[in-house]
Amino acid sequence: MLHPVILSGGSGSRLWPLSRQNQPKQFLSLIGERSLYQETLRRAAALPGAQPPVTVCSEEHRFMVGEQLQGVGLANGGILLEPVARNTAPAIAIAALHLAARDPDAVMVVLPADHLIEDEAAFRAAIVHAIGLAEAGWLVTFGIEPDAPETGYGYIARGAPLGEDGFKVQRFVEKPDLATAQQYLADGGYSWNSGMFVFSAQRYLDELLAYAPAMFAAATAACERAKRDLDFIRVDKDAFASSPSDSIDYAVMEKTDRAAVVPVSCGWSDIGSWSSLWAASPRDADGNRHEGDVISIDTRDSLVRASDRRLVATIGVDGLVIVDTPDATLIARKDRVQDVKAIVDRLKAAGRQEHLFHRKVYRPWGSYDSVDAGPRFQVKRLVLKPGAVLSLQKHHKRAEHWVVVSGTAEVTCDDRVFDLHENQSTYIPLGSVHRLRNRTAEPVELIEVQSGSYLGEDDIVRLEDVYGRE
Amino acid sequence: MLHPVILSGGSGSRLWPLSRQNQPKQFLSLIGERSLYQETLRRAAALPGAQPPVTVCSEEHRFMVGEQLQGVGLANGGILLEPVARNTAPAIAIAALHLAARDPDAVMVVLPADHLIEDEAAFRAAIVHAIGLAEAGWLVTFGIEPDAPETGYGYIARGAPLGEDGFKVQRFVEKPDLATAQQYLADGGYSWNSGMFVFSAQRYLDELLAYAPAMFAAATAACERAKRDLDFIRVDKDAFASSPSDSIDYAVMEKTDRAAVVPVSCGWSDIGSWSSLWAASPRDADGNRHEGDVISIDTRDSLVRASDRRLVATIGVDGLVIVDTPDATLIARKDRVQDVKAIVDRLKAAGRQEHLFHRKVYRPWGSYDSVDAGPRFQVKRLVLKPGAVLSLQKHHKRAEHWVVVSGTAEVTCDDRVFDLHENQSTYIPLGSVHRLRNRTAEPVELIEVQSGSYLGEDDIVRLEDVYGRE
Repeated sequence: MLHPVILSGGSGSRLWPLSRQNQPKQFLSLIGERSLYQETLRRAAALPGAQPPVTVCSEEHRFMVGEQLQGVGLANGGILLEPVARNTAPAIAIAALHLAARDPDAVMVVLPADHLIEDEAAFRAAIVHAIGLAEAGWLVTFGIEPDAPETGYGYIARGAPLGEDGFKVQRFVEKPDLATAQQYLADGGYSWNSGMFVFSAQRYLDELLAYAPAMFAAATAACERAKRDLDFIRVDKDAFASSPSDSIDYAVMEKTDRAAVVPVSCGWSDIGSWSSLWAASPRDADGNRHEGDVISIDTRDSLVRASDRRLVATIGVDGLVIVDTPDATLIARKDRVQDVKAIVDRLKAAGRQEHLFHRKVYRPWGSYDSVDAGPRFQVKRLVLKPGAVLSLQKHHKRAEHWVVVSGTAEVTCDDRVFDLHENQSTYIPLGSVHRLRNRTAEPVELIEVQSGSYLGEDDIVRLEDVYGRE
Repeated sequence: MLHPVILSGGSGSRLWPLSRQNQPKQFLSLIGERSLYQETLRRAAALPGAQPPVTVCSEEHRFMVGEQLQGVGLANGGILLEPVARNTAPAIAIAALHLAARDPDAVMVVLPADHLIEDEAAFRAAIVHAIGLAEAGWLVTFGIEPDAPETGYGYIARGAPLGEDGFKVQRFVEKPDLATAQQYLADGGYSWNSGMFVFSAQRYLDELLAYAPAMFAAATAACERAKRDLDFIRVDKDAFASSPSDSIDYAVMEKTDRAAVVPVSCGWSDIGSWSSLWAASPRDADGNRHEGDVISIDTRDSLVRASDRRLVATIGVDGLVIVDTPDATLIARKDRVQDVKAIVDRLKAAGRQEHLFHRKVYRPWGSYDSVDAGPRFQVKRLVLKPGAVLSLQKHHKRAEHWVVVSGTAEVTCDDRVFDLHENQSTYIPLGSVHRLRNRTAEPVELIEVQSGSYLGEDDIVRLEDVYGRE
């Protein structure tokens, strides 16, 4: 049976300031309403005979994965948490072990969560070809037919044909220089290495055992000691951490003699930068892509995104990327957007937060947005999802005032439990044990005014938490 | 005696989004901490023998003028309110009438509130020369020595010398084309018309009577029926409105045979655009002027301003103006900034607010900042100045929750009056008659959460107001 496996890796620095470590690219709605992860889920679910998808993600993103999966209404084939990042080969290994234990004939379609595919019919056709090869024991990668001499991708050289639409892989080649890339393009026998794969779970494990036995052993031990936590599967941290860190390309694909490639033209983009998002987006007659509240005069070939409640106006500019978020705005020349990484590095070096979190932070129970702050106070807008329960908690350094502005919240404050309706407020004194809950089927919005001598997120004592947080 | 008269006109569209109709250029801190108006006040007060300054401003800006005047610690020579805009000649006329009634020998130094002057010693020396000429009956204008063939200014051609440092005006010339401007620059006998003047109040009125009798009559009637309102002098609206609208140049200076010019080089700028602000600002080695939280990589010859609590990052850009405010950001090529007016026109045409007000709105009692809003709620941060009293008021469509986060407020709610300290809150039900007051010597900050079906500023019934607002 066919099992989609979605790899939700990626640190999220290349699309800063929209992507943050806490909310990387795959969870963003970049084109259309659904996130790239949700589009990938939807695309995978539409494959013939597809079983519920397995997602491999970092622990930090587990609630976002759960919520986005729920948002597209798909059954959960397993959310496997990587306790530490060990690159793609071990991540795929735990998914393969998870699947092989349930379905010895499992065929995996491994898809990165953050790719864009315009021509889904071509994509599906290529997968169907690949499944045939996988069932014959091949490890199939997809080679994107190049339409430009890109130097940002690895390439795959085709070898002997395997049936009508596949080839043996002759060799994988590293990111080439421009002259080499031009030569590959002229040659015609080369494709871009897309990072998408189809193979049987067992075959992948066999090859991993052969070529990366330490990785195989670590992944096996990590899965044997895995624990279920709510909807998530936590593989053992120490075992997984003991694995070498390597990509599937280096660890397996370049070593096995069973590597095949299926060439495909499907309007693929890995959206590796703001300029590639611009290139992949529908644009107006002046070559612009505008999102949000934008007024532009004599503006060309630019990507302009305004954030909520904010206006962006442009005059006489050309070839710019302008990305506005509630706490940070980027203005970059489109051919220099790779240097966004340097901005993120500076933020890291300065011990700042703008590369880690958005002003609005997602939590398993909903979100909070820090709408205002001063020396001894902070104002947050909290949104509680239907059924959400915040932890039973207390603070040492701050009191809180809550005003419900939408819906009905259940409040616990020391030994009292009561409902707070729209336009009602309450006060949580410093040191009081308190909890917020949404027992209704509608979201609750409330304004929290914090007052105190220290207002950091770390002044919290969690006495009880339904989401398993400490 | 020497009386500075500060003209605070200007609609504030050319430095949008920092300038708004409610807060035009002269009230902004563009270079340094003080506003241009405050710098003008300070410069005027430093003139030898200067009396307390007279300010002429629009009614809309009266509280801002009062507060900024107080902020530099200067005595008030009179704040004259223009009930409608009638250009500079009538504005100067009411100032001249105001002064002549108190000091028949009054010499006026008329200074626009929004100019920048770098070399104050040269400015003062020119004023001293001009005073001598004014006492001899001349109407003196200042001619800025041109250092470039500017086409954005009117020019003054010098005639016969008047003593050591002045000249009769030969003629005023309109903004020239580039060839003519280049010719003027080569000729050397031309200066830019700065809009600064020195003359005796009585002489100005005599010339106005001679050359613009309708204007003289209107200004005289407006002053005869003037009323004092707190610190302000309200000239009669109907009388003032009946005046022709004209500049002092057209109405008087071009017609009188007593026009003199004192040439001066004093690092003058009227900061008529973002590019002229950039040119007038100190810049770093890459030609950049950064204000606020800015991170830039390979950025040249650009003006970048980040607003409070926000970061602006730039990569690889050149010759841009980037101005970020809490609700709107402008990105313009520096040589296209005159088109900011077109943005403002679009905002007007769309019935929007971003050209009228900042998110933070100044009131006579302090300010409010709309930090968050949703369908049935709004969150504001209010700051009450020491001694401030808001109007006694009620609302038909909204209730309010107040949380004091700094200082102590006195609250009136129907028949109760009580103090609210830091970390205390209260509720103002819909329809309740209420008032906020700051009886202390420290500012009060409070968070107001409004909840209701309509949240516009016009849902207010003022029952009593110490600031004379209706």
